[in-house]
Amino acid sequence: MNILTENMDPYRNPETYDELHKDYNADLPLLLEWAEKQGGPVVDLACGTGRATIPIAEKGIEVTGIDLNTGMLERAKQKTAGTLLPVIWSLQDCSNFTVDTVSPFICMTGNSFQHFLTNEAQDRLLRSVHRALADGGVFIFGTRFPVHEDLAPEQTEEYEEEEGRRVRYEERYDAGRQLLHCRTIRTDEDSRAQEEDIMLRYTYPQEMERLLSGHGFKIEHRYGTWEKEPLDADSKEMIYVCRKA
Amino acid sequence: MNILTENMDPYRNPETYDELHKDYNADLPLLLEWAEKQGGPVVDLACGTGRATIPIAEKGIEVTGIDLNTGMLERAKQKTAGTLLPVIWSLQDCSNFTVDTVSPFICMTGNSFQHFLTNEAQDRLLRSVHRALADGGVFIFGTRFPVHEDLAPEQTEEYEEEEGRRVRYEERYDAGRQLLHCRTIRTDEDSRAQEEDIMLRYTYPQEMERLLSGHGFKIEHRYGTWEKEPLDADSKEMIYVCRKA
Repeated sequence: MNILTENMDPYRNPETYDELHKDYNADLPLLLEWAEKQGGPVVDLACGTGRATIPIAEKGIEVTGIDLNTGMLERAKQKTAGTLLPVIWSLQDCSNFTVDTVSPFICMTGNSFQHFLTNEAQDRLLRSVHRALADGGVFIFGTRFPVHEDLAPEQTEEYEEEEGRRVRYEERYDAGRQLLHCRTIRTDEDSRAQEEDIMLRYTYPQEMERLLSGHGFKIEHRYGTWEKEPLDADSKEMIYVCRKA
Repeated sequence: MNILTENMDPYRNPETYDELHKDYNADLPLLLEWAEKQGGPVVDLACGTGRATIPIAEKGIEVTGIDLNTGMLERAKQKTAGTLLPVIWSLQDCSNFTVDTVSPFICMTGNSFQHFLTNEAQDRLLRSVHRALADGGVFIFGTRFPVHEDLAPEQTEEYEEEEGRRVRYEERYDAGRQLLHCRTIRTDEDSRAQEEDIMLRYTYPQEMERLLSGHGFKIEHRYGTWEKEPLDADSKEMIYVCRKA
């Protein structure tokens, strides 16, 4: 499994991606709060088309958006072309990124944490983040809570989409590797099928505590939503505000 | 939650415990294989009434059985009283035990690993094991695989037992703390109810890899059964053979 080449299906079309996620901004208040508290230069990891990066830059805070998907980053660049926003777009693998100066604040949103499929990939990511943070720097990220009903060994759903497309959505959870394999097969009226695959790693709450402390992070806050609701067994998300210890 | 005082219900009656588990010996071949390969002095952690300890001693291998339950250990002592078996029974907390000399082989069976309810308790246990192992020493233990259908948020079962006792069995899984709370309420014909509670910590496969490597263990084998079947997403158990790295 090579995350660079085999796990990019949902990002093949940046315009569609933006359209799908245009109404999502639940994470912005928390991210902006900390960006203003900590100051720049901020690093926004797995920044995609800049959904969170640009609002941070619009506050006048320097920010580097890092992503390894050329298409997504090109679209981000287009959005800020001709502006004076203090933003740098950087094509890099987040699990081994470097920045010119250490940062007081690094963030990673959109459940991108789930793209780091193995313990080794998680370790590389967190080592890179720790190295890039200034002393006392803050790292904020979120990931899906391993909700019981979402992680059955197999689930299938079939439905009709607009313009008569039939959609078959399959999920298989590999409990050993803690990987959810999602497959969407869209078949149009002419029986042409298009397949979209994605693998998502799940990390369990106590496992996350061990992971973060093992990498030298002190968890300052853990939330169940980006709106700061408590993290508990009914949560759908896990949001961590960690300080470089 | 104090594991020493609040999680001992199933061990209140050692005779009943022995009777319930008398036919279980699936773990013995693997344990004896490694005890003979590594030699003594062996340490059998959470030895209970000596179900695995005694067969190891019967091979002529020195073994110390450690448990923190006085009643269980008393029953173990009775079983070997008057014999010349090379066994020492030692009343200690496994998460902070000491032995006179380092051991080439330490084991912990019967899913006792699940009694270490927090990351901190797991850490204490593994630090104690690592300290007590000789260089190149082997630690073998097993724990239940986090089977999806077993870890629903709530499950209840009611049935009749012998002599007209009604039994209500309840399970609640706290996905945040990764703790399964099992409660058995037995009501006899005279409506007298007896309650038995136990908490079991679940550790996920990738979490276990991180836990063991973080404590300086190299996983030599991982099995899905004590009979050495492969560990995969359909496993019911996780058995680890680890070497002090």
